[in-house]
Amino acid sequence: MSSLRGSCVGVCRSSLAMFPLILLALSILTTAASSHPHPLDPLSPAEFIAVRAAVLASPLISDRPLTFHYVGLDEPDKTDVLSYAEARSSSSRAALPRHAFVITRAGGQSHELRVDITNATAPTVLSHAVHHGAGFPMHTIEEQFEAEALLFKHVSFVESVRRRGLDMDDVICPVFSIGWFGDAGPSESEEKGQQRLVKLVCFMAGPTPNLYARPIEGLTVVVDLDRMAIVKYRDRVVYPVPKAEGTDYRAGKVESPYNGPTPAPGVVLQPEGRGFHIDGHLVRWANWEFHAGFDMRAGTVISLASIHDVEAGARRRVLYRGFVSEVFVPYMDPAEEWYDRTFLDTGEFGLGITAFPLQHGADCPANAAYLNGYYADQDGKPVENKDTICIFERYAGDIAWRHTESAFPDRLITEARPDVSLVVRMAVSCGNYDYILDWEFKTSGTIKFVVSMTGILEMKGTDYTHADQIKQDAHGTLLSENTIGVYHDHYITYYLDLDVDGTNNSFVKNSITTKRNTAGTPRKSYWTVRRDVAETEADAQVDVNVAAADLLIVNPNKKTRMGNEVGYRVIPGGATAASVLDDDDFPQRRASYSKKQLRVTPYKRDEKWAPGLYADRSSGNDGLAMWSGRDRGIRNEDIVLWYTVGVHHIPYQDDFPVMPTMSGGFELRPANFFERNPVLKMRPPRLEYDLPTSVNCSCAGNSS
Amino acid sequence: MSSLRGSCVGVCRSSLAMFPLILLALSILTTAASSHPHPLDPLSPAEFIAVRAAVLASPLISDRPLTFHYVGLDEPDKTDVLSYAEARSSSSRAALPRHAFVITRAGGQSHELRVDITNATAPTVLSHAVHHGAGFPMHTIEEQFEAEALLFKHVSFVESVRRRGLDMDDVICPVFSIGWFGDAGPSESEEKGQQRLVKLVCFMAGPTPNLYARPIEGLTVVVDLDRMAIVKYRDRVVYPVPKAEGTDYRAGKVESPYNGPTPAPGVVLQPEGRGFHIDGHLVRWANWEFHAGFDMRAGTVISLASIHDVEAGARRRVLYRGFVSEVFVPYMDPAEEWYDRTFLDTGEFGLGITAFPLQHGADCPANAAYLNGYYADQDGKPVENKDTICIFERYAGDIAWRHTESAFPDRLITEARPDVSLVVRMAVSCGNYDYILDWEFKTSGTIKFVVSMTGILEMKGTDYTHADQIKQDAHGTLLSENTIGVYHDHYITYYLDLDVDGTNNSFVKNSITTKRNTAGTPRKSYWTVRRDVAETEADAQVDVNVAAADLLIVNPNKKTRMGNEVGYRVIPGGATAASVLDDDDFPQRRASYSKKQLRVTPYKRDEKWAPGLYADRSSGNDGLAMWSGRDRGIRNEDIVLWYTVGVHHIPYQDDFPVMPTMSGGFELRPANFFERNPVLKMRPPRLEYDLPTSVNCSCAGNSS
Repeated sequence: MSSLRGSCVGVCRSSLAMFPLILLALSILTTAASSHPHPLDPLSPAEFIAVRAAVLASPLISDRPLTFHYVGLDEPDKTDVLSYAEARSSSSRAALPRHAFVITRAGGQSHELRVDITNATAPTVLSHAVHHGAGFPMHTIEEQFEAEALLFKHVSFVESVRRRGLDMDDVICPVFSIGWFGDAGPSESEEKGQQRLVKLVCFMAGPTPNLYARPIEGLTVVVDLDRMAIVKYRDRVVYPVPKAEGTDYRAGKVESPYNGPTPAPGVVLQPEGRGFHIDGHLVRWANWEFHAGFDMRAGTVISLASIHDVEAGARRRVLYRGFVSEVFVPYMDPAEEWYDRTFLDTGEFGLGITAFPLQHGADCPANAAYLNGYYADQDGKPVENKDTICIFERYAGDIAWRHTESAFPDRLITEARPDVSLVVRMAVSCGNYDYILDWEFKTSGTIKFVVSMTGILEMKGTDYTHADQIKQDAHGTLLSENTIGVYHDHYITYYLDLDVDGTNNSFVKNSITTKRNTAGTPRKSYWTVRRDVAETEADAQVDVNVAAADLLIVNPNKKTRMGNEVGYRVIPGGATAASVLDDDDFPQRRASYSKKQLRVTPYKRDEKWAPGLYADRSSGNDGLAMWSGRDRGIRNEDIVLWYTVGVHHIPYQDDFPVMPTMSGGFELRPANFFERNPVLKMRPPRLEYDLPTSVNCSCAGNSS
Repeated sequence: MSSLRGSCVGVCRSSLAMFPLILLALSILTTAASSHPHPLDPLSPAEFIAVRAAVLASPLISDRPLTFHYVGLDEPDKTDVLSYAEARSSSSRAALPRHAFVITRAGGQSHELRVDITNATAPTVLSHAVHHGAGFPMHTIEEQFEAEALLFKHVSFVESVRRRGLDMDDVICPVFSIGWFGDAGPSESEEKGQQRLVKLVCFMAGPTPNLYARPIEGLTVVVDLDRMAIVKYRDRVVYPVPKAEGTDYRAGKVESPYNGPTPAPGVVLQPEGRGFHIDGHLVRWANWEFHAGFDMRAGTVISLASIHDVEAGARRRVLYRGFVSEVFVPYMDPAEEWYDRTFLDTGEFGLGITAFPLQHGADCPANAAYLNGYYADQDGKPVENKDTICIFERYAGDIAWRHTESAFPDRLITEARPDVSLVVRMAVSCGNYDYILDWEFKTSGTIKFVVSMTGILEMKGTDYTHADQIKQDAHGTLLSENTIGVYHDHYITYYLDLDVDGTNNSFVKNSITTKRNTAGTPRKSYWTVRRDVAETEADAQVDVNVAAADLLIVNPNKKTRMGNEVGYRVIPGGATAASVLDDDDFPQRRASYSKKQLRVTPYKRDEKWAPGLYADRSSGNDGLAMWSGRDRGIRNEDIVLWYTVGVHHIPYQDDFPVMPTMSGGFELRPANFFERNPVLKMRPPRLEYDLPTSVNCSCAGNSS
């Protein structure tokens, strides 16, 4: 009897209690990894320390203080990485040199360095250059808090707070980037917008941590980050600070009654355990294999995604490297305190830096595994962003494929296969907004990109307490007393270096084209496909709302048995807004790529960031639209797909004080990539009653 | 010790083995329901029998044979149903009269009858009318098989099969509807397309049940269903019948090696049990309540959907009645055997009839409950469509809302709530194609409509065995040897009688409108919202790809505390194609509504079916586009939203021989419906480690 009881405990444990054990196993795997890092592994803490030592010891930059604004992997050449990846056994894999790319600020200049950290005990600076063009690197966290502290010693500000009857202890003034407006910058002393200026935007916390619901309107505070000084202060107008009652979103602090809808809890049980394996940063699941990396600017970076083709008996390449290149968020209020809110979250603040730890069981389900990220602080030291990426198998009740055949008079045939996918998730909280950024891999070969927007609206103080009082454009929606949710856009731009079954690909537009019927049958019209292969970048700038077309990345050098070029389709899945700002407007010039959702460029090692390498205060003379304006050849070349998910966001009261998630995205779906449906041979699931039976059996007397 | 062991078994059982128990409980609930049916309940088997008895006994139709083509609930007046629904206690609810609507064919005419079945033992025919316009009711299953049987006795057909060297035993020839082409019908003898004609389209089964992969091309066989006779037979051309090797999709018959990708199995465990309750057809879950009905033409019908507003302390109406009104699927090959494949699946074949039983654990997860549907066979007797609807809580790992606040220097605040939704699913297999039609209810108030397309492509036989041989338009993709997947569209049109917080609503277009900045700040442009309230139907015909606008149904008589009109937004979520056929083309005239994804009409009791009540061979002189062409007033009226999910489908080899699911849809999302986020007060989940701990405790020695 005791052995039977032991068996029962075993079953309960192995199924229900496996999550902490696997998490433990994972962390061992992560630390114990291979003998050398994968060439695309992000820098380890030891490597960050080596980089810092080399830069600080280098005679190339003598100015101090020296601050680190970006430290990340300087990727090896693509050909070297591909050779490495193709050498399947670790014995035949020679470690590639490890290089870091660094941007520091010192002496009022942006310095770019490449550092060899192959031998982390003897790192060496390989190159050094000073950036002379427009724009600046990402803000550091430390300088943001330092800038904020300036304000509390500023006499005029003390007066402004007193004038409004506010308690200084509750005031909080985060740094907002200010874009670029040509000569018409925020500080008269500034020359053509080429100072590293930011604004401090003030809110009241206090009874609620939901500071964005309590804006202190009317102030303009400009800080020069390099001089670390307030260079402009103006108190233009006073509006009431909203009371923001009931806006505390913390579980322990929600106003009673705590009576929101509460669905029944559910946990995914995996009776055979987890189906994916993580070795360092390499993830293997079902027919997929990819590298999940991390970068302080981009956050999650997926590389070398390939899928095992059962029919071909081969692993086939799909994507070399992909990440969110930029998140452009322009607000639509022209007021003095608002006109310049035209954020480039990735380039100004860093998605990796703001991808804070995911909450177990809430941000990701209980069956998730987690990866940590590391970035450099201002002093160059590594900071751990714990649990910044989660990976989990998604059991959403979806169906992979099904068919019921009713044409046979004597029998009904039904076959169905439940769909399971693998999700790689990061949640970015860049100020008030939160973006949940999912890569969802499907066994069918599809990769789904889901952007879920949540978090807190950016709100403006106002005198209005009722919509009837609004007689002119309020540039937003009255969400609560004295609170306008300001109109804005979101443009999330993906960099996707697709290598569909090889490096050289083409972009094809299969346009739906109406034809008049001349076949002599009674039908008058039909549509057919006009196939256009893009020769140059200009041919591959697509407004997906206008084009009735299948949009494909194909490999013209690889054909199926039937003679079709292998490819992948890009399928928009909602959230297809494009920017409607005027072309001559400054924010539009900086993010001019945002007028088309889709672009294709030839692969260039340094063309990674849609608004250019230096996004903060950029003037639009670098970046995706400028590069693709060169109209280079993209046919049968190594090409990169840029896809922008876009939303015009008119706020509604339901989005206040924290917004229920709203999702959009797109997918990459095989299009003549496989000879046939790659999941036809997916085995059917065990029937539902198998599971309780087997568990009960071992509890109740089954011998094994 | 034994009590501890008992406790462990109890825990295992209560969690894992609950599914069969709950299913049992459900079926008891379903049968034991209330003392009288809900006024929107579909007809019960006893009611079908009563309808049949009354119709057959009626002297109003003397012709025989009499065949039943539609039997369904004749809904009570909306005002009566609303009064019934508002009487919350069952004691104050008086049963409403039960009426059925019936369409029969007899004497070559379509007869419409209304039958009172309030007293099922004494049913009476209330009215009778003969339909004199164009079009016919749905085909019955029996007449389809009867028509098919004709062919096997047809001498020319025996000769055609012999000529092709095929085995007659493997031939199968389902009925295909043929649309309407004016005078240019398939049979010369026909007058203006007003005979009830169909075609028989032949395939080879045999080694594979995937008959659509083995078309017998070149035959035109026209059957007059009323005369039950072949009225045209033509053998125009012979193409090889594809071998279709490896196209058997049945688990037991898949060609070895059976080596498709197999993700780890997963089952949702609900430690506190299921969170929804079904009482007859009334479903209650979290803050939602609705009636899930069934109709042999529409399949799932959702009615009286309302949401409990915690802040208002009230249940608020959202939707009176919604269902899929039509599925239009035109193919794009003008050849003699193909030009007329322009299906209206709902009106010609019936979504309810073709919504075959869902597979437990594969079509729906293990935690699903099931509802049966009933329809009338040709003889008027009830047929059970078992498990035709499933209802389940979806634990997809999604996030309801989240925020991380990093503005405080001393602490990081993160709050996140996992999302759970309730899915009501039906899977329709109308011939070769399968549509998985999900209603997904979210606690945030959102209803998501997801159409997932899978099943088998409609394929055409051809001489081609390689794409290089194709020198002219093949009207499709070469999927396999001798097999073209023909270009086609899918238009799934939803009827949604929204009653947002009351019966009278308006349609509002909040258009994104670019403005030049005149505020004197450096910004040059911004966008604002131009609000247009639709006065008449013409104002509410929207191409969602062109409109940069939020599209809302609002209640102009109800405002939030802030003075905003309460409303719901319609948000397209991919699959937004509109028809590109010429306006004068016959299939386009029959489904002329398919040129705009969105339309709004005033509620009229009989305006339910987008192509009109009689869809088979309809000539386009009835239906949605014609009704809305009257340009009636829709402002502050009881209005109906019609939304069409559309896909231009260019087949790819990956879709062969069964297509991996492809999804699109739209959502209805609260827009100033609530005073604030209704899920802010959703409690956080128990942390993941609670669950294994509690289970282990009871296994390993915990006292209770």
